[in-house]
Amino acid sequence: MSLPYSEQHYFSSYDHFGIHEEMLKDESRTLSYKHAILRNRDLFKDKIVLDVGCGTGILSMFAAQAGAKHVMGVDMSNIIEMARKIVDLNGLSDKITLIQGKMEEITLPYQKVDIIISEWMGYFLLYESMLDTVLYARDKYLVPGGIIMPDKSTIYAALLEDGEYKDEKVSFWDDVYGFDYSPFKDIVLSEPLVDTVDLRHVISNPCQVFEIDLYTVKVEDLAFKANFDLKARVNDTAHAILCWFDIEFNKLTTPVKFSTGPHAKYTHWKQTVFYIDGQVSLRAGDEVTGSIDCRPNEKNNRDLDITLEWECKAENKGGKRFYCMK
Amino acid sequence: MSLPYSEQHYFSSYDHFGIHEEMLKDESRTLSYKHAILRNRDLFKDKIVLDVGCGTGILSMFAAQAGAKHVMGVDMSNIIEMARKIVDLNGLSDKITLIQGKMEEITLPYQKVDIIISEWMGYFLLYESMLDTVLYARDKYLVPGGIIMPDKSTIYAALLEDGEYKDEKVSFWDDVYGFDYSPFKDIVLSEPLVDTVDLRHVISNPCQVFEIDLYTVKVEDLAFKANFDLKARVNDTAHAILCWFDIEFNKLTTPVKFSTGPHAKYTHWKQTVFYIDGQVSLRAGDEVTGSIDCRPNEKNNRDLDITLEWECKAENKGGKRFYCMK
Repeated sequence: MSLPYSEQHYFSSYDHFGIHEEMLKDESRTLSYKHAILRNRDLFKDKIVLDVGCGTGILSMFAAQAGAKHVMGVDMSNIIEMARKIVDLNGLSDKITLIQGKMEEITLPYQKVDIIISEWMGYFLLYESMLDTVLYARDKYLVPGGIIMPDKSTIYAALLEDGEYKDEKVSFWDDVYGFDYSPFKDIVLSEPLVDTVDLRHVISNPCQVFEIDLYTVKVEDLAFKANFDLKARVNDTAHAILCWFDIEFNKLTTPVKFSTGPHAKYTHWKQTVFYIDGQVSLRAGDEVTGSIDCRPNEKNNRDLDITLEWECKAENKGGKRFYCMK
Repeated sequence: MSLPYSEQHYFSSYDHFGIHEEMLKDESRTLSYKHAILRNRDLFKDKIVLDVGCGTGILSMFAAQAGAKHVMGVDMSNIIEMARKIVDLNGLSDKITLIQGKMEEITLPYQKVDIIISEWMGYFLLYESMLDTVLYARDKYLVPGGIIMPDKSTIYAALLEDGEYKDEKVSFWDDVYGFDYSPFKDIVLSEPLVDTVDLRHVISNPCQVFEIDLYTVKVEDLAFKANFDLKARVNDTAHAILCWFDIEFNKLTTPVKFSTGPHAKYTHWKQTVFYIDGQVSLRAGDEVTGSIDCRPNEKNNRDLDITLEWECKAENKGGKRFYCMK
């Protein structure tokens, strides 16, 4: 079965409209934006709003509903053709202007905006995120004292017991219908796994590894190295470092937040699993310290190069592994 | 969340190697090929074999194991770099030559082959299939009386009761957080749904709609219009036409076949659901007749344009809908 072909004409079709269905049906995501916008009508009344990566236009329509003077929705995908139909059908064409193109190349009807709304987050927060575009829009269009929604995002890490699934994912390659496919093991281990994790398999406290303040962060800050310190809560074996992120809308009359963690309601971002080489047996209280280095791949800057280093003094074990999110 | 970017550099990464994992773990698929090859060693002994779209090289290795004189594996994806490692690791480098490129452009070390093996099938058999490449290879390289594996594939159709899921897929768009998204309904209905179906929801006899004999079929035959006649087995409501395909390896000492239908073991091809407009209430014995017209999209010939017409005289109902697999 050959995959690549269909991708080549993505821009000429709605064939990935399924992702919009998935995002709209993600209630943690969409209801959080809805509440952040509609429970803060005072902030939106008569304001100029920019929706970065508007997709089907749902956030733009929330903003218009909240009393915005005018909303500009920008997206480079031709899903925006559908957004136009939807906005028109819902009688909001006079309040919402939809523009297809790259934020860096288009001209907006308003040169200054009071509020920027955007659902820019990708897997592991930063993978294929549109944050760089949001920051470009912030620096070019946002008035002093303007509002960005959301305005804070935080990546967390924890230790994960995942023996059974890891074994299935890795050992499979030792004997593939009688052949040795072990070179694939390294690929499996080098690809962060985006999946939902059962909270019962999280065996350490969560640790905040990276925080983004959307009012002040610069694009270059998104290449970061951060430390973590994870303390085992129980006697168990760690096979991976688990990561997730929280999103906050703070600078509001009525703040809103949601989490994509294993303790929270399912989101389409799920969680991200970084398998370590081997495993480490821990007793309650043992600490695993280390660092995550995350930066865009130099050749394909939509890819993330991630290096994870860890050490457990109590067990006299440690490791270092390079991952790439593609 | 933005999807398209990662697709643009597919060819420069293994990021879709997951599809190879999925295909290898599909035992209906891979064991069928293994049995077709290894239970017919007499046919492979000292033969020249061509593996069209060799992927990770599993079929090429089966053929080498079966005693082939030499196997040539061709694939345009750079997964072939991994295939080389695997073939080498399994000590078969002298028996297997792997060539990266398009079948139409490469030069093979042997100009004639005795056997062509290929796992070329896509969703709904023909979506993003490599069959055209297999037929090119057949016409250019296969010796008279040579063998093609598999040599027969058949598409079947049946009536599907799918009220609950269809309603969820379609009605959702009537009220999306208070907005009318109904234009998306047409997109949902126009996209064949690739999913597994519970056999209990299949409410008619299966009907053969299209058969391919790989020894004689021509590329132009793959644009086809075929009729179906489906008789309800029970009193129930039909919401969709379900399609699947069977694969046969016939011209062998020990023939092999497998099905991707709802009655068979799970395969990664699942089944394909074509929702009709509305629904039709049937009594046992009622017949739904119609036709499926399937041809490559003129602009993007990897897309499939499918037109489905149906009529139920007993219920005095009928319909026609256009679908596109992208």
